[in-house]
Amino acid sequence: MGQTDKDKAIEHIQIKPYKKDATYSYTLGAFPTYELILSKPEHVVKVLIHSGYTDTEKLKTLCTKHNILLEVNDKLIGRLSDKENCYVAGVFEKYDCKLSKDKPHVVLVNPSNMGNLGTILRTIVGFGIYDIAIVLPGADIFNPKCVRASMGALFKLNFQLYDSFEDYRRQYDMHDVYTFMINEEHTQNLRDCQKSKLFALVFGNEASGLDDSYLKVGTSLMIPQSADVDSLNLTIAVGIGVYEFTR
Amino acid sequence: MGQTDKDKAIEHIQIKPYKKDATYSYTLGAFPTYELILSKPEHVVKVLIHSGYTDTEKLKTLCTKHNILLEVNDKLIGRLSDKENCYVAGVFEKYDCKLSKDKPHVVLVNPSNMGNLGTILRTIVGFGIYDIAIVLPGADIFNPKCVRASMGALFKLNFQLYDSFEDYRRQYDMHDVYTFMINEEHTQNLRDCQKSKLFALVFGNEASGLDDSYLKVGTSLMIPQSADVDSLNLTIAVGIGVYEFTR
Repeated sequence: MGQTDKDKAIEHIQIKPYKKDATYSYTLGAFPTYELILSKPEHVVKVLIHSGYTDTEKLKTLCTKHNILLEVNDKLIGRLSDKENCYVAGVFEKYDCKLSKDKPHVVLVNPSNMGNLGTILRTIVGFGIYDIAIVLPGADIFNPKCVRASMGALFKLNFQLYDSFEDYRRQYDMHDVYTFMINEEHTQNLRDCQKSKLFALVFGNEASGLDDSYLKVGTSLMIPQSADVDSLNLTIAVGIGVYEFTR
Repeated sequence: MGQTDKDKAIEHIQIKPYKKDATYSYTLGAFPTYELILSKPEHVVKVLIHSGYTDTEKLKTLCTKHNILLEVNDKLIGRLSDKENCYVAGVFEKYDCKLSKDKPHVVLVNPSNMGNLGTILRTIVGFGIYDIAIVLPGADIFNPKCVRASMGALFKLNFQLYDSFEDYRRQYDMHDVYTFMINEEHTQNLRDCQKSKLFALVFGNEASGLDDSYLKVGTSLMIPQSADVDSLNLTIAVGIGVYEFTR
C-alpha cells in the first residue's frame, strides 16, 4: 500500500477500544510498542503518546526512520487502555503469518486465557521457538491483553490458526509430534523420552488438557509431578516443555 | 480451643470481603475448599454453600467428619466472591508455619502479584517442594486471589515471612543458596551448574529481579534464554528452576 493510500485508510479508521473482529489492534505501553515498531514497522498505523510522556526522543527518531505518524492524544490513549499509567500505545493492522516448515513448533489446542497465551509467546521466544499454531476456538492472539502479556514477543514469531489439529497436521507433517497429557496413563516421562530436533509440542486447554484421542498422535508425554497437585498451570507446562526440548 | 469457645469466636467474626489485616481468609470454589478441609481442618471456621450447589453429599460427609459447620448462605458467598459462579467457600483462621530445616526451600524476594504467588505455590508443590520463604514487602499469601491461584497448594506447604533475606539466612544457614539473576554477568548456566540436595532457590521481584548484592550470596544462576526477550516471567523462572533442581 502506498503512503497516500495508507493515509486515506488511517482517516477511515475509527479508533475504538479493541474488538475481536476489528482489523486493527493496539500495543499498550512503551515496551511492546518499541517491539512492534522494531519487528513489524510495515504494519504500524500510528503511535500515540500521552502529553505527560517525557522519554520521547528515541521514539520520535524511530518513528521518523520508519515513516510512522506519532500523535499526542491523551484522550485516545485513555480510551484504549484501562490502566492509568499507559503513556505510549501503538495502533497496528492485524496480519497473517506462515510457520517455518523446518523449525520446531508449539501447538496450543483451545487456549482460553489471553494473559496465558501472551505469557506463552514470551516464554517460547525466550527459548528460541518462533513458530506457534493455535487450534480454535481459542484466545485471540491480537487482543491487547495478549499482546501486553507477550511483552511484544508476538511480533517476533510466526503464528497460524487452525480449525482442527488435523488441519495443522496436514500442512506440517514432517514434525515429530509430542502431546503433553495431564493423565499419566500411557505416557512417557518428559525427562527421559527420546527427543527429536524437528518437534511439535502440543498442549491442551487450561482446564481440560488434551483429550485421550491425542494418545494416538505421536509420543505422549507427562511432566513428572507430585500427587499433591491436580496438574501444572498451562504456562508452566509449556515453559518446562520448551526448556527441556531445547537443552 | 474447645468447640464451645470456637462457637463463641464464630459468633464474633464479622464475615466481610477480605482485608489484609483480617485474622480470617477464604477459599473460593469447591476445589480449594476441599484442599483446605483435607489439609488444615483445624483452621476451618465454617464452610459456605450456595443453595444452587448440587454436589453436597461428599462435602457434608467431610464436614461432619471434621466437626465443621456447613452453612447455606447465598448472600454471603456473593459478597465474598467477585465471580458469579462461586458455589462453595471456606472460612479459615490464618495460621503460622515453620520451614523444614532439612528440606529444600524456595525464597521469593518481594513478589508483587498475588496470582503469580499462588501459581508459584501450586508449581513448587507439584515438584515436591513444600517450604517457601517470602521476604517482605510482598504479596499477601492469604489473599483469596493467591489461595485460589494456588488451587489449595497453600495448605500443603510451610511458609515463613521475613523482613530481609539476611533474617531468613540467619535462621536457615545450612542450605546451599542459588540466586536466579536476570542479568547474565557473573552467573552460571542453570543447566550445567553443580546442584546440591539441600538447596534454597532465590528469586526476585517480577519487575526488578534480584539486585546485584545477591551476586555475593551463594551461587548465581541464569536460565539460558534468547536475546529476543527481556526476561522470563517470574512464575516460569520458578517452574524451570524447581524442575531442574528436582531432576
